[in-house]
Amino acid sequence: MKTTPETVKYVRRFGQRVRLIRQQNELSQEELADRAGVHRTYIGMVERGEKNATIVTIVKISGALGVPATELVREIEDA
Amino acid sequence: MKTTPETVKYVRRFGQRVRLIRQQNELSQEELADRAGVHRTYIGMVERGEKNATIVTIVKISGALGVPATELVREIEDA
Repeated sequence: MKTTPETVKYVRRFGQRVRLIRQQNELSQEELADRAGVHRTYIGMVERGEKNATIVTIVKISGALGVPATELVREIEDA
Repeated sequence: MKTTPETVKYVRRFGQRVRLIRQQNELSQEELADRAGVHRTYIGMVERGEKNATIVTIVKISGALGVPATELVREIEDA
């Protein structure tokens, strides 16, 4: 599903969650990409809100960060 | 990202979460689809694990169910 001006904020919030937890883990984007089994530039695109990630990607990234998937989607919807 | 035999289980678990919460809300698949702004057959495909939903779709469905996005991805990864 393409993002629209109304929905891109959810994708950006997700990216900010990934970045926050990655940095807390002191991992580079490349290290996280390797662990998650995604292309090394993919994590940067996710963090910049350029990728409307899927469930499978969410599970791969959260597993690579050692957190449950819930942590990556926490508070991404409008309050 | 296409699902593989290793990853389809995450998509199936997500579908089971959607179905469980939809039924708890006593909503039909069509009613949920209308609220979420997705095609009326889409919810059935999600619940059967046939759709690798994206972040935007997760937020739309969780919003339509009146729960945070975390509830739809709770425990979908391997324990």
